[in-house]
Amino acid sequence: VASISAQHCRTLPGRPLAEVETPALLVDVARLDANIAALAEFLRRRAPGIRLRPHAKTHKCAEIARRQVAAGAVGVCCQTLGEAEAMAGGGIADILVTNEIADAGKAARLAAIASVATVSVCADDSGQVALLADAAASRGVTLGVLVEVDVGGGRCGVGSAAAALDLAASITRAPGLRFAGLQAYHGRAQHLRTHAEREAAIAGAVAAAEEAADLIRRSGIACPTITGAGTGTFEIEAASATYTELQCGSYVFMDVDYGRNARSAVGGVPDFAHALTVLTTVISRPRPERAVCDAGLKAFSLDSGPPSLALHPGLDFRGASDEHSTLGVDDGSELRIGDRLQLLPGHCDPTVALHDRIIAHENGVVTSVWPVARGW
Amino acid sequence: VASISAQHCRTLPGRPLAEVETPALLVDVARLDANIAALAEFLRRRAPGIRLRPHAKTHKCAEIARRQVAAGAVGVCCQTLGEAEAMAGGGIADILVTNEIADAGKAARLAAIASVATVSVCADDSGQVALLADAAASRGVTLGVLVEVDVGGGRCGVGSAAAALDLAASITRAPGLRFAGLQAYHGRAQHLRTHAEREAAIAGAVAAAEEAADLIRRSGIACPTITGAGTGTFEIEAASATYTELQCGSYVFMDVDYGRNARSAVGGVPDFAHALTVLTTVISRPRPERAVCDAGLKAFSLDSGPPSLALHPGLDFRGASDEHSTLGVDDGSELRIGDRLQLLPGHCDPTVALHDRIIAHENGVVTSVWPVARGW
Repeated sequence: VASISAQHCRTLPGRPLAEVETPALLVDVARLDANIAALAEFLRRRAPGIRLRPHAKTHKCAEIARRQVAAGAVGVCCQTLGEAEAMAGGGIADILVTNEIADAGKAARLAAIASVATVSVCADDSGQVALLADAAASRGVTLGVLVEVDVGGGRCGVGSAAAALDLAASITRAPGLRFAGLQAYHGRAQHLRTHAEREAAIAGAVAAAEEAADLIRRSGIACPTITGAGTGTFEIEAASATYTELQCGSYVFMDVDYGRNARSAVGGVPDFAHALTVLTTVISRPRPERAVCDAGLKAFSLDSGPPSLALHPGLDFRGASDEHSTLGVDDGSELRIGDRLQLLPGHCDPTVALHDRIIAHENGVVTSVWPVARGW
Repeated sequence: VASISAQHCRTLPGRPLAEVETPALLVDVARLDANIAALAEFLRRRAPGIRLRPHAKTHKCAEIARRQVAAGAVGVCCQTLGEAEAMAGGGIADILVTNEIADAGKAARLAAIASVATVSVCADDSGQVALLADAAASRGVTLGVLVEVDVGGGRCGVGSAAAALDLAASITRAPGLRFAGLQAYHGRAQHLRTHAEREAAIAGAVAAAEEAADLIRRSGIACPTITGAGTGTFEIEAASATYTELQCGSYVFMDVDYGRNARSAVGGVPDFAHALTVLTTVISRPRPERAVCDAGLKAFSLDSGPPSLALHPGLDFRGASDEHSTLGVDDGSELRIGDRLQLLPGHCDPTVALHDRIIAHENGVVTSVWPVARGW
C-alpha cells in the first residue's frame, strides 16, 4: 500500500522528472533550501536572540527537518506522535509536541520518545498533566510541559493568566515533569490578509502571553520559553520582547493560501518561493477548451481553496473530483494528452498528508525520494 | 509510515473500540453488510437483468470488494491502477478501470493486471487506444476497452455519437483490444438534491448513451455493455432499457453529503446506513461551550462539507485545522477530556484515502483491521 510503488521510487533518483508516475508530490530542492536559508538569515539579522523551531507538521519529513536544524533551528515542533516518532528516528534531538495528550497510551508513546530525544508537550488541563507525570515516571524520563494559552486562536489553551499560573504550578509539583513555559500560538492570525490585521491580532497574543508569563514569574516560577508564531506573522512575534521561539512551518514549501497574504509592513521579510507542487498528467482533451488531468481530491487538499495553475499560463482550474481535475484551456493552446503539469497546492500541510513520499528534484532530475510520516 | 502503527493494529482484533488509538477510521460491519445486501436485493427484485459492479474507489479495500462479489456483484470498478492492483491481488476476478490511461508506463501496469484478472478500461481518444494496444501486445493479453461518452458530467468522454463510433471502430481494429461498450457515468447528477433533477439529468445521459450505442450497433459493431450510475441515481439508470451495469460505490458507507439528497421517487430504494465514522478523542475542554478533538483536515476531507456530529446530540462542528476539530457544546453537557466521539464524514471517498487502515467493528469490539489501497 503506497502512493507510488516503492519499486518505482527506488528507480527514480538520477532519472528525469518525466519518468515519475503521476500524480506525485514534488519538492524543488533549490527552492526548499533557499526558503530555509532565507528565514534563518532574516532571524540572524533581525532577531538574533530568538530561536527557530520549525513546525514539522508541514512536511512530516525527517530529511527536511535535518536541513532546518543544519541551518540553525533548535529542533522541531510536531502535531502528532507519529511525526514525533519519525523525527526522533531521523535524528532530531529536540522535539516539541504542540498539542495536548488525552490518554495514557499516547502519554506512554511520548515518554518513549523522551528516552531518545529532548521532548516537550503542551497542556491546558490538570488531567493531562497527571497522565504525563504517570508516563514520565513509568519510563523514568523527564518531559517538558508548556501551558497552552488561548491567545486568540479559539481552539485549545487556558483562558486566563490565573489559570495558566495554576497549571504551571501543578506542573512544577509533578515528578518527572519540567515546566518549560507557554505555548502561545495564534493560528487564526496567520491568514489574516493585511499586515495591519495580523499586527493587531499578534498584539493581542503578546499581551495575553505576557500577562500569563508575568503572573507565573511573579509567583517565583521560571518561565523560560514563550513559543508560537507561524509563516504569516513570525516577524511580528520576533519583534516583540515576549516570544523566545518561533514555530513557522509552511515557509519551507509555501502554498496558494499563504500567497494571498498581503506583504508584511516589516522590511526584509523574505518572499518565500513555491517549492511544493503536485505533478499530474493530462489524460483527456475532450474539447478544445477543456482538459482533464489525473490529480484530484485525493492528491491535493481543497480545504483552503483550489490549486493554482500559475506555472502554466493559459490554463485555469475549474473543478476537482476524486482523481481528476478539470481545467479550462485558452484558445490556441497546444496542450496534449500525456503532457505534464505542476499544480501549486492551495494548502500545503494536508496536501503532504495525502502522499507517502516526496520526490525531491533539481534541474528536472529526481535527486531523492523522501518518506512522509503520514498518520498518527 | 502508517496511519496507526502496524503493531498497534495487530493487537486490536477482539479488543474493545475503547483501545483503538485515535484518530482512526471505523466501519460498522453490520451496517456495511446490510448496505451491501440491501442494494443486491433491490436489484434482484427490480432490475434482475442488470449487473452490479460497485466502485472500489470508495473503499479501496479488497475485503469489502469480496463481500460485494459474494452478494452478487460481477466484479468492481477502480479509478486508479493502485486500486486495481490491490483488487486483483485480493482475488477480484473482473476489474473495470473507469478512467483513461495516458502513458505507456501505466498501460504496462494495466496489462500486467490483465494476466491475472479480466480487465477493461476507458478511452476517449485514439492516442490512448494506441498505448493500450501496444501494452496488450507486449504482455500477450487482451484488454477490454469502453468508449467513454460525456453524458453530462463535463469531465472526460467523447462529445458525440459519431466520435464514439469512430473510437469504437478503432478499438475493434486494434490487436489485443476488445471493444466492450460504453462508459456513461454522470457524476454531477449524483448530488442533485431532488429526485426530479436527478431524473432529468439521467434522462439526458440515457439519451446520449442510447444514441452512441445505436450508431455503433447499426455500423455492425456489438456494444454489449453500457455502464454507469452511482449511489445518487442508480434506480433511474436501472429502470432504463439502456444501462446494463451499475457502478454505485458510496452506498457501502454513505456520508453526510449523500444524506442531503432528497429521497428517490422510486419506491423500494434502500435507505443506506452510515457505516463509516472517524473515531476521535476529546483532547481539550478549554471552556464549557467548547471542546477540541484530535481529528482534523488530515483525518477527514472537507471537500463536500464538514463531518456531522449526529451521533452525539448536544455537540456541533465549528471548524477544523490540520489535526483538530473545534466543537460547540450545549449547556449541561458532561463531555470530558478523554471521551471518544464518532464523526460522520462529509465525503466518504477522500476520507478513506487519508487512512492506511479501516478498523472493522461489531457491537463495540474490533473484528478485523483491513488495509486501504491508498495512492496510485
